[in-house]
This record gives sequence, C-alpha cells and structure tokens, in this order.
Amino acid sequence: MALINENFLKLKAGYLFPEIGRRVGAWTQANPEQAERLIRCGIGDVTEPLPSSVRDAMHAAVDEQGNRETFHGYGPEQGYAFLRDAIVENQFAGLDISADEIFVSDGSKCDTGNILDIFGKGNKIAITDPVYPVYVDTNVMAGNTGEADENGAYDGLVYLECNAANGFVPAVPAEKVDLIYLCYPNNPTGGVATKEQLQAWVDYALANDSIILFDAAYEAFIQDESIPHSIFEIEGAKKCAIEFRSFSKNGGFTGVRCGFTVIPKELTVKTSAGEEITLHSLWSRRVSTKFNGASYPVQRGAAAVFSPEGKAQVAELIEHYMGNAALLRQTCQEIGLEVFGGENAPYVWVACPEGVDSWGMFDKMLEEAQVVITPGSGFGAAGEGYFRISAFNSRANVEEVCRRIKASL
Amino acid sequence: MALINENFLKLKAGYLFPEIGRRVGAWTQANPEQAERLIRCGIGDVTEPLPSSVRDAMHAAVDEQGNRETFHGYGPEQGYAFLRDAIVENQFAGLDISADEIFVSDGSKCDTGNILDIFGKGNKIAITDPVYPVYVDTNVMAGNTGEADENGAYDGLVYLECNAANGFVPAVPAEKVDLIYLCYPNNPTGGVATKEQLQAWVDYALANDSIILFDAAYEAFIQDESIPHSIFEIEGAKKCAIEFRSFSKNGGFTGVRCGFTVIPKELTVKTSAGEEITLHSLWSRRVSTKFNGASYPVQRGAAAVFSPEGKAQVAELIEHYMGNAALLRQTCQEIGLEVFGGENAPYVWVACPEGVDSWGMFDKMLEEAQVVITPGSGFGAAGEGYFRISAFNSRANVEEVCRRIKASL
Repeated sequence: MALINENFLKLKAGYLFPEIGRRVGAWTQANPEQAERLIRCGIGDVTEPLPSSVRDAMHAAVDEQGNRETFHGYGPEQGYAFLRDAIVENQFAGLDISADEIFVSDGSKCDTGNILDIFGKGNKIAITDPVYPVYVDTNVMAGNTGEADENGAYDGLVYLECNAANGFVPAVPAEKVDLIYLCYPNNPTGGVATKEQLQAWVDYALANDSIILFDAAYEAFIQDESIPHSIFEIEGAKKCAIEFRSFSKNGGFTGVRCGFTVIPKELTVKTSAGEEITLHSLWSRRVSTKFNGASYPVQRGAAAVFSPEGKAQVAELIEHYMGNAALLRQTCQEIGLEVFGGENAPYVWVACPEGVDSWGMFDKMLEEAQVVITPGSGFGAAGEGYFRISAFNSRANVEEVCRRIKASL
Repeated sequence: MALINENFLKLKAGYLFPEIGRRVGAWTQANPEQAERLIRCGIGDVTEPLPSSVRDAMHAAVDEQGNRETFHGYGPEQGYAFLRDAIVENQFAGLDISADEIFVSDGSKCDTGNILDIFGKGNKIAITDPVYPVYVDTNVMAGNTGEADENGAYDGLVYLECNAANGFVPAVPAEKVDLIYLCYPNNPTGGVATKEQLQAWVDYALANDSIILFDAAYEAFIQDESIPHSIFEIEGAKKCAIEFRSFSKNGGFTGVRCGFTVIPKELTVKTSAGEEITLHSLWSRRVSTKFNGASYPVQRGAAAVFSPEGKAQVAELIEHYMGNAALLRQTCQEIGLEVFGGENAPYVWVACPEGVDSWGMFDKMLEEAQVVITPGSGFGAAGEGYFRISAFNSRANVEEVCRRIKASL
C-alpha cells in the first residue's frame, strides 16, 4: 500500500486566510446591501499596473517566440545570463556576488519552501513569532516538527518572539539552532533590522555552524539608508546565509511570477563523512532535477525592472505604496493607536485598542468600517493584540480607509 | 551544525546530458572548421515558433496587467478556472474529470518531481528501464533508494525492463510495488501502451493498493485512434492513478512553461491510523503552501491552445514533427537498422548496428555525420544498444540528417 507523508496531517487547517474568507463571506451574506463598501487591506498583494517597461519587454519576448530564429525553448534551469547579470549589477553591486550564485525561479514562495529539499532530518529550526506562515508549514510538511498545540505552535520549532520591546527583531537565542528564518523588512510587522542586529545574527550563525535563510522580498521599500537591503552587506554572511528575493513587490510580479535565490559558493557544510560541500552545488542539483527554468518572457520582463525606465517606474510604485503606508500610520496614530512598521515596509502593524484582541479587531473593522485587515494572531501567538494593514492599494481606497478608521474607532 | 540531505550524494554526476555536452565540446574544439555542420537531435526540445493564437493571448494578458481594473495579482495556486475548465472540456471530455481535479503548474518536470512530497518513506518504487531520468533522480533525492551500482542502477528501485520483445511496455511485476511511473507515449523509446496493456496495470494497482504516476506529456502525438491519450480512459484508473500533462510539446511551451497534474478525488489512501484520505487534498495543500500559481499571461496562452485557431495550429505543429519522425524512421530502416517509435511519438528509437554500443554510436554519428543523438544507455541499462533521435527540428535539418545518415552508415 502506498504510504503518504503523514506530516501533512499535522498541519492546522483553516488557519488564517481561509478563516478571514469565512468571516468576510458570512458578513457579506448578512449585509448584502453594504458588500460594495468592503475594502480589502488583508492579503499582501500589489494592486497597481505592471510597469510599461516590463510589459514592453514581455511583448518583445512573446514576439521572439514567434520566429524560429529567435525562439527560446528550454532555458538554463538556473536562469538566463541576461537576468542573472542584471541582478548582480543592480542589486548586489560591490558585494562580490557572482551571476552564477543567482538562481532565478518562478517566485520566492516556492524557493523558501523548496530550499528544505537540500537539508537533512534532525535540524533544529528557528523562526520568528509572528512569522510568514510558509516557513512554518513547509517545515511541518518536511517532518521537522512535532504536533501543534492549541495555539498553533509546533513542538520542536524554536519560536523567537518579536515584540515592541525588541523592535520586532529578536536577539539570538541562548540555545543552538541549525536553520534560522529571518525576513527583513518584515512581513507581517513591517520592522527592519539594522546592520548591527544582522551582524549579531551572522556572528551567531558562524559560531554555531547555523544557516540563515534570509527573506528580503521587501527590500525595495527601505527608505532609511542605514538599513541593509541584503544579508550579504554583513561581514561573514557569505559563509552562513542564503537570501531569497522577489520581483513581486517591487515590479508588481505577483501574477507574473519571478524571484531568485542567492547562494554564495563560500557557504559550505560538512557531510557526516566530514567532507566539505557547498550548498550551492546541492541547490543547483535540486534546481536542475526538479525545475525547468522560469518562463522566458517573464525573465525578460524581470530584466526590464533594471532598465533606466524600469527603475524609474519601480521607484514610482514604491513611492505610491509608501505614501499609502504613511497615511495609514498617521491615521492610526491620530486616533491614539500604537503603530509600528510602514516606514521601510508596505505593512503597518498596529496594537489593538485596550481590551480588544486580534480577531476582535478584525470583526470590529469589518462590521464598523467594512475594512478587511489581518489579525496579528494569525501570524503566530506573539502577534496577538496586533493587526496588520497592507499598504498595497489605490490611493483612493487608502484615503477612504483612513476616513472610516477615524469615524469608527 | 546544519545537516544536509545526504541522499543528494548518491546521485551520479555527469550522467547523460553533461557527458553529451563534454563530448560535443571536445569534438568541436578538435574540429573547429566543421563545427557549423553540427545538427542537434539530442535533447527533446521543440524548435518551431509558438503558435500565433498563444502569442496573441499572451499579448492581451500582458496588456491587461497594464490597467489596475484588469490587473491580475496572486491567482489561485491551483490555476485559473478559465484554464482548468478549458482543459477538462478539451482533454478529458466524457471522462468525468472535474475542473477542480486539475492542478495547473509551471511544467511537468516540476510536478513529476514535487509529487513525492505527498508520499511517505518506505514506498517501493517501480520505474521502466530505459526511463526519463527525473523519475529516478527525484526518488534518490527523496531517500527512496540506496546507492547506485556501476551501471547507475539504484538499490531499492524496481526496474521494469522495456525491450523489443515486450514492445517497450513492461508486464506487471511479480512482486508488490507501491508507486509505478509509466510514461506513454514513451520518452525515450517512442513506444505506446494499448488500452489492454494499461488495463493490466490499473488492475494490478487496484489489486495491490499501488499508485500509478502516469506521464502523458506526449499524448498529442498519438496518431493511432485505438491508443489511449489518458490513463483515465481505463476503467478503475480514477481510484489508482495521477496523470501529468504538459503544454511543452503540443503548444511548444518548453520556454514559456505550463503543465498540469490531474488527481481524481476518488483516489484515496489509508493513513497509518486507518483513516481514508484523498491524495487530492494532500496535493492541494502542497500546492497552496509551496507554489503561488503559474504566471497569468502564461495561463492565458495555454488556454489559447484550445481555441479553434489554437487547435489548428497545434495540429500543424504535430504534423510537422511527425513528418520529421517518418523521414527519420524511413531513412534508418532503408539502411537496415531496426527502428521503433516515431509513429505516435516524436522520438525514433533505433537499434545500433551489430557490434556498436550506444556511446559508440553517439561518437560515430558525431564524428562521421556531425549529428548529435542521445545514447540509449543514458536512459538506463536496458537502453544499451539503442540510440534516440528526436524529431524536434526543422524539416531542412531533418532532411540533411537523413542524407548524412545514408552517406555515413
């Protein structure tokens, strides 16, 4: 009899977004006349058009597919040189990252999940709390955890609490862990990590032979010049870190699909036989065997993000969303709520008013303001008492959300 | 210390295509004046332009991304309804497959590899020999095998020999296996399986609680009306089979990237606690957690394959490649070689002349005819003594290959 991966059975069903969907659905059914008023600031999906430079490049690439002389079939699984070169030149200038250390993919969610393929069983995994649920669920599926408790916390994971006191950047743990997921600028808190904070993590990883899995999907939103965009700005990181990047939030590629993973060749681990091996070679083998490269027209579109026109258009998009974030921050502050994030990230993380918990706030915002937010507790136990507002929206919608928050709260 | 997945270390490096690359490179260096004469019939990649109907649909979808009213961000991880509906209507009519049993992806290679995520440890895996190497390598990476022997055969796998005597369709094994990979029309042999042959496999799977992983990537090339295009044409298959399909070879999507997996909801397995569970629910969870949907413009392009114009254009492509296959078959037969495949598949599988082995034939074709073929032994021990010629080429190239084969052999 075929045996299934029973780790899947440990996954908590109907956890966050399905529960949001259920509550929104129930409210809409009960209040059909108000359904049109609903404004969604829940999921972190971009709303503004794909830049024209990207569209032009994709059109040209689609046309190339129309001639056998310029037709592109199977491409290199690791990505085309034109894109890997453009990434290095534009995103890692001066950091001594080479193009063949870049692995282009169809998105960061896939990469942060699939990376576990190259790691063995028995690793101690640390995640921040609150956290992007994909890091947790993929570890559950890979068998790196035990069962979940009633709060949804999995046995065997090391949860690093992020709170207002530590600025949502946890200190290194007292215990030894093997893999550490860090995401800065952070989803969901919008917090950022300073060079000094990341240096402490790199030093910890080097001292403990741990690997940092650094998710920099939101780096384009950083406004403060002192905040690092890449973990590889930190001394020693190339010997202990893997970085995940995405075109989703800068270029607006959530529906077009492109991301990449950076694995420096200096990053080695020892096999049980004591042989030194690069994670780069393992990931390259994984990618060659289980992936067939990102779509050619999509890779051309991604490269256009780095054209002069593309850069200007991305800058406008970032300015738009950060303008939204500023309005949302200001409004929440004006009504006396404690506000975090939203200055170097498209997420505003807000403390619930006294006596209201995360889901209570969700219901209140839905019923009183017809605004869908994300309850902080959905990202982990330490998110309880907070809610997340996404700045991914039109300006008109954000202005309306601000008016309603002021009127309702 | 972070532990790696040491199963990767069992993988044989430099196995097939890298070795082909090495030999072609060495020959080109030694014979620079003849390098331009080289014609590649090795890798199974399409060569003809992407149909205009597909390009038109992709252009329109890229334009939609330019307006916030028609912009598509994150789509359903399982694929858009417009494509799932079109697939069911056009490829599974009358087979009682529903749209939500279709999972759209960025390609069949990913799916055939990733499917192992939902299966547990301890399954007995059967593969045909010769075989598409991805089935083997992904099982090695997942820890479902022991070490390889000197022929590249892995301990723990059940190899089902395909040869001229069984028409390259193996009989069901005497022993009990849990997962069975079948690919028909076959890569690399070009063989097809009849309804009766597939019925025997389905009956075996039902009797042994095994799962058939059926790769139908080449179904569009079937010319013989009696040959099934889908495993789901076979009675009982919905209770024991998963099917993989691709737009790579019919629509020419090798560079554009789209495929899909079909998992009927009737397909259940028992957990160790005795609970009945659908593989559909496990795969859906896997897809939701580790994938973010295929590119929207790509899905629109894939749907256009089923438009009246798209169907006519795909039919032309198939006719072109099958015309190539017929010429290659005829030429090899004329010079007295034993020829298989190439009648319902784009691969012609040829027995080497007496006294020449697969790599010997590779070298001979390279040196004497400047034609790159694929040595059969690269697909498994039972492929020794054969070589594969791909029909994916321009007509002019195929005609030249035929002339050279006649002149050289």
